[in-house]
Amino acid sequence: MPAAQPTARSRVRRIPKRGRHDRETIDAILDESLVSHVGFAVDGQPFVIPMLHARLGDRVYLHGSTASRLVRTLAAGVPACLTTTLVDGLVLARSAMHHSMNYRSVVVLGDAVLVEGPDERAAALEAFTEKLIPGRWAEIRTPSAQELKATRVLAMELHEATAKVRSGGPVDDEEDYALDTWAGVVPLALRAGPPVPDERLADGIAPSPAVAGWAAERGL
Amino acid sequence: MPAAQPTARSRVRRIPKRGRHDRETIDAILDESLVSHVGFAVDGQPFVIPMLHARLGDRVYLHGSTASRLVRTLAAGVPACLTTTLVDGLVLARSAMHHSMNYRSVVVLGDAVLVEGPDERAAALEAFTEKLIPGRWAEIRTPSAQELKATRVLAMELHEATAKVRSGGPVDDEEDYALDTWAGVVPLALRAGPPVPDERLADGIAPSPAVAGWAAERGL
Ligand SMILES: Cc1cc2nc3c(=O)[nH]c(=O)nc-3n(C[C@H](O)[C@H](O)[C@H](O)COP(=O)(O)OP(=O)(O)OC[C@H]3O[C@@H](n4cnc5c(N)ncnc54)[C@H](O)[C@@H]3O)c2cc1C
Ligand SMILES: Cc1cc2nc3c(=O)[nH]c(=O)nc-3n(C[C@H](O)[C@H](O)[C@H](O)COP(=O)(O)OP(=O)(O)OC[C@H]3O[C@@H](n4cnc5c(N)ncnc54)[C@H](O)[C@@H]3O)c2cc1C
Ligand code: HEM
Ligand code: HEM
Repeated sequence: MPAAQPTARSRVRRIPKRGRHDRETIDAILDESLVSHVGFAVDGQPFVIPMLHARLGDRVYLHGSTASRLVRTLAAGVPACLTTTLVDGLVLARSAMHHSMNYRSVVVLGDAVLVEGPDERAAALEAFTEKLIPGRWAEIRTPSAQELKATRVLAMELHEATAKVRSGGPVDDEEDYALDTWAGVVPLALRAGPPVPDERLADGIAPSPAVAGWAAERGL
Repeated sequence: MPAAQPTARSRVRRIPKRGRHDRETIDAILDESLVSHVGFAVDGQPFVIPMLHARLGDRVYLHGSTASRLVRTLAAGVPACLTTTLVDGLVLARSAMHHSMNYRSVVVLGDAVLVEGPDERAAALEAFTEKLIPGRWAEIRTPSAQELKATRVLAMELHEATAKVRSGGPVDDEEDYALDTWAGVVPLALRAGPPVPDERLADGIAPSPAVAGWAAERGL
């Protein structure tokens, strides 16, 4: 796997000790996070649009409608930025200024390309589903030719990608440790609740093995 | 409160029934979400950077270092986009294509301005803390003159803002309701865990009233 090398525009400058350029860290964040915020400019105005993403190897995939502005703009080959953030906690310091958050984030720079090969397209669409609930793809009606025609898949290479990670407790100024203010971390995480059946689900259809297994693993 | 009017570039076009332009919806999403993804371009390359935000009235505030590229770029008055997303659930349909997510997101377009007035600056910095844990500001050491000098506060007006909301179960093609595939929603939400004291917290300092009250409200 090629290492993502920091370039002049992707080297973390503010608090550089929190910057990571290794693919192991980058991939783990991309794989855990569900949603990216994708930036591109139209007529000089930047837009940042939330999109589901999925990584396979050295590429991050997006999908959307053939008619979508984001899809059409990115497919034309403009510079883009894909950013995803996991929020891990509130960092409560003794001083206001040293309040912070624990987080893991990834920024990917580059042009997106339209994925035209049918095998890669199919693999990406499967990856979106498998990423959410492993095993789900085998349980559902797969896309028809007409549905595939309405859908575009985009890919960004992980050549110019950076991660930034903050973890641990607050870091206060030395003299503030004498204060009797409580300080610490409130952990935060995206958590699932028990699956809610569709109103139109026919009687007697129990959660499928993929959904039931996924829920059981999380104690739901 | 002025209504945010959809403009040519902020009217939701894809699945427009999910678009909302009322400030009540927009404000509620901005107030619940902690992190924005802020887009701006430098030399034609868009960057999307995660930042804490806080809303007061018609403005969304950001803060960072005087030396930060984001802060310096936005303070110079370039077009920007601030987007925030709350993920509410995985929508598991009978067909692959109708898989989706439940979400609430806001996109704010416009230039950011540097907040220079000391009162507005102080109110914004307090808002960041109060938003996380109400009552925390009164418990902590407030910023020194030197700390304030190192910090910049930026504001974006909510003039050109859009929300988009998806909720409820999957919407399958009529013929797919005959399949015996389980379908429904897995709710997702950012949840807090019990507060973890700082390693350097002196013995006998219990969680402060603001932190203890916040944790108790969430059953932690
Ligand atoms: C949840 C969260 C909340 C944050 N809140 C704030 C806040 O309120 N104020 C604040 O100043 N900063 C905040 N940050 C940090 C912020 O994302 C930037 O890292 C920081 O502001 C420096 O910005 P800059 O433009 O000066 O970056 P520079 O360090 O100049 O950026 C150079 C390059 O480093 C990489 N990079 C920068 N930031 C990140 C990142 N977060 N993840 C991955 N790669 C990155 C990009 O490739 C970028 O092009 C937050 C981060 C997270 C994840
Ligand atoms: C968690 C999440 C995951 C998503 N995953 C996908 C996905 O995988 N594929 C996909 O196609 N779409 C996804 N969406 C929807 C996506 O954000 C866009 O709304 C959609 O792709 C249409 O994009 P467009 O560029 O064609 O927008 P247009 O409808 O042309 O956008 C016009 C204007 O509408 C406003 N707008 C657009 N989207 C949003 C938004 N999400 N929130 C607030 N205002 C908005 C903006 O002002 C924008 O300038 C997701 C949304 C969320 C919140
Ligand atoms: C787990 C799998 C999937 C998830 C979670 C998912 C999620 C989403 C989401 C959240 C949207 C945005 C809808 C909106 O604007 O509110 C979307 C749009 C879209 N998805 Fe998927 N999707 C998945 C799989 C697929 C597959 C397999 C296909 C095609 C075969 C597909 C085709 C589309 C299309 C065409 C749109 C654009 C809708 C529009 O803008 O009109 N999706 N998807
Ligand atoms: C609840 C309150 C606050 C929270 C949650 C918070 C959060 C953050 C976060 C997450 C960062 C990014 C640090 C990084 O890059 O990893 C940051 C940066 C910064 N914060 Fe805050 N902050 C808060 C209050 C304040 C206050 C009150 C001040 C000033 C008086 C301040 C000044 C700064 C400065 C100067 C930076 C830039 C650090 C750098 O880039 O070197 N913050 N803040």
